[in-house]
Amino acid sequence: MMFNMIEFIEKKRDGGSHSKSEFQEFIRGVMDGSVPDYQTAAWLMAAFLNGLDDEELSCFTELLAASGERYSFPDDIRIVDKHSTGGVGDKTTLVVLPLAAACGAVVSKLSGRGLGFSGGTVDKLESIPGMRMQLEAGEFLSQIRNIGCAISGHSKELAPAEGKFYRLRDVTGTVPKVQLIAASIVSKKLVGGACGYVFDVKCGSGAFMNDRESAGELAAALVSLSKRFGRKSVALITDMEEPLGEWVGNAAEVYEAIEVLKGGGPADTRELCVALCAQMLAISGHAKDEDEGAAIASAALDDGRALKKFAELIKAQGGATEILERPLDILPRAQKSFALKSEREGVVSKLDARAIGEALRALGGGRMKVDDRIDYAAAIRLRAKTGDKVRAGDAVVELFYNDDNKLADAMKHLSGCWEIAEKARPRKLILGRIS
Amino acid sequence: MMFNMIEFIEKKRDGGSHSKSEFQEFIRGVMDGSVPDYQTAAWLMAAFLNGLDDEELSCFTELLAASGERYSFPDDIRIVDKHSTGGVGDKTTLVVLPLAAACGAVVSKLSGRGLGFSGGTVDKLESIPGMRMQLEAGEFLSQIRNIGCAISGHSKELAPAEGKFYRLRDVTGTVPKVQLIAASIVSKKLVGGACGYVFDVKCGSGAFMNDRESAGELAAALVSLSKRFGRKSVALITDMEEPLGEWVGNAAEVYEAIEVLKGGGPADTRELCVALCAQMLAISGHAKDEDEGAAIASAALDDGRALKKFAELIKAQGGATEILERPLDILPRAQKSFALKSEREGVVSKLDARAIGEALRALGGGRMKVDDRIDYAAAIRLRAKTGDKVRAGDAVVELFYNDDNKLADAMKHLSGCWEIAEKARPRKLILGRIS
Repeated sequence: MMFNMIEFIEKKRDGGSHSKSEFQEFIRGVMDGSVPDYQTAAWLMAAFLNGLDDEELSCFTELLAASGERYSFPDDIRIVDKHSTGGVGDKTTLVVLPLAAACGAVVSKLSGRGLGFSGGTVDKLESIPGMRMQLEAGEFLSQIRNIGCAISGHSKELAPAEGKFYRLRDVTGTVPKVQLIAASIVSKKLVGGACGYVFDVKCGSGAFMNDRESAGELAAALVSLSKRFGRKSVALITDMEEPLGEWVGNAAEVYEAIEVLKGGGPADTRELCVALCAQMLAISGHAKDEDEGAAIASAALDDGRALKKFAELIKAQGGATEILERPLDILPRAQKSFALKSEREGVVSKLDARAIGEALRALGGGRMKVDDRIDYAAAIRLRAKTGDKVRAGDAVVELFYNDDNKLADAMKHLSGCWEIAEKARPRKLILGRIS
Repeated sequence: MMFNMIEFIEKKRDGGSHSKSEFQEFIRGVMDGSVPDYQTAAWLMAAFLNGLDDEELSCFTELLAASGERYSFPDDIRIVDKHSTGGVGDKTTLVVLPLAAACGAVVSKLSGRGLGFSGGTVDKLESIPGMRMQLEAGEFLSQIRNIGCAISGHSKELAPAEGKFYRLRDVTGTVPKVQLIAASIVSKKLVGGACGYVFDVKCGSGAFMNDRESAGELAAALVSLSKRFGRKSVALITDMEEPLGEWVGNAAEVYEAIEVLKGGGPADTRELCVALCAQMLAISGHAKDEDEGAAIASAALDDGRALKKFAELIKAQGGATEILERPLDILPRAQKSFALKSEREGVVSKLDARAIGEALRALGGGRMKVDDRIDYAAAIRLRAKTGDKVRAGDAVVELFYNDDNKLADAMKHLSGCWEIAEKARPRKLILGRIS
């Protein structure tokens, strides 16, 4: 019996449910090109509007994961993974990976490059001289055995069917559907081979999910879908209305991560890193609950164990460990800077993460196209955050750049990117937790 | 401001309404290829599921009609047009065109060729030797002035945007949406230049609309959409569960039409032709209402005026008028015949129009692909219709064919195409009227 794609579309159009074998035929057809994009697009819109039931969502996610190579680990290695839905200034992976490993967890991470206004962990780490971000499978595994953590970009596309669907969703108005997003994220997590996941679902202008409600829905969908695959998981919903921390930019975020690993750094960055690590320790059994996990994580930041683990990680992947002693000498730095100043006295009541992310990309710190080269040194420093007092003439946002033309591009995004009011409270960082 | 197709899709996805200028940009993009099929497909599914409001439906229809050449007539010529949604054995146009003209109406018809299991009027008339079915605009107009009726195939595609949308709908599960069907039909009617339309909305197994409810919806949509363009119209909903009349096949349907034009022929074919003509006379002001129109039409069939008008039409378009005197000598006839007989005595309780239509196509009387050649002589004769008594051994369906291989193909469709019961009533032909 030949697969009939028109009947498949009609079924979803009329609110029906697909069987696993139907999904198999569909995804096979999408991958071998026998199902044309216009039919996939029609199905995607029908699925967007009519939804998928839990069984369908599991099938679809599993088949996306199965469309390419999968990582797997020996039974004695129980990996815990952390995934962020993407934000501006989000350097938490740089901290959390060595931090959780320092606390006894085994952590591996397959990371992508940045695209759009949010950055990518691979790009950030590549600003460390010598750092190799493409590990082969054998090397990856032995590093995990030796030091408890490893991070690598992926040379081949993970879950290639997911990539194909995503690219089509991106141009057919079918991206912002919680179920489809959850299938996309979880399929790639399944490829990574971890036993448990901590999701950091960002919420706000600089995030994929702009409001608390939709972020909560996505968090719930991620946890419930992970559970269907027998994975322990927990999701934190965290603020991304303003950027995280003080620095935005590839090398600059490595700098800030080192500060946090040394027990310092901006309070919000530290708070989120501790919270995420606490969840990782709790689900991997290295802490009895998140409170104990937070205490363990805080101690490891303060007593130098996390920094030491980061040194091991950098050394194992060929990077310059001197960066930990003299980051400002070794990290690439921009030649020029420009400060945007407050015109009046007051309290910062808004600082738009999306605008800052777009401005960094315009400065050369991010990509417009997948093969764009990045200027690791381009950076934006946030001299004040929401709730901070400023006087007239105080710098609020400072740009670091190498190319005057790019400065002009970046400035276009920054008009109105902050607001000053009589009073404003600091934003709450952790908005919710779903497990 | 560049047209943003993704935002256009998102608007319909989220239940919004498009402006006329948005539709203009969209259709321009579809026609010049700058909007890829996968984006159009996503929009079609969103429009299928979320619908179009009345204003949007008018804009869309108008723009489809405006995508190619349009026919127009001088103000003193007020054309009335009749459109069937397509069925099996539906030879009414052959009768109604000269009949309405004989009763004083001015009738022009742009007809397509048959595709799928329902036939096309152009094919049927081409089985008359010499008949020219491609009239140039000037000839078309002067014939209408001289004899009050003309019929022509169209060399260029009418409403090419409609064709492009239709072909994509056909492969993306977005055909059976009443609004989209109505836009498709009315856009082509607008191109034809008539002032009023009579729609024959077929209902049943041999029709596009299988049930009374959906046929009623389509009829209402056609009439209301026509009204928005200032066109008078009326729709009859008519039975297509069994084929119309006694003969199915190109030359055979010309034969049956001549019988009706001579005042004879099967009762159901005559009934529908009179009813459709009555509506045409009523909306064109040649009768004060449908009852008077029916009386006028019946008289014109019985007193030979309709037949005389058909002779004028055939002559004007180069056809062999001897066909009216000696149809069986002049029309192409098949060499072989095969009768399917009833195995038992009873009353025909079902005669499946769809199966008969498919069987005729298999015999060579219809097309699988647009450029297939047709065997005008292939025919199916219905020796009994629903409600008729048969004895064991009576022929029910008789096949006329030239090619034994095609007979075998046709037979596959005919198993179970009729049923015999203790009793059954003749089917009601005219199921409703909407104006």
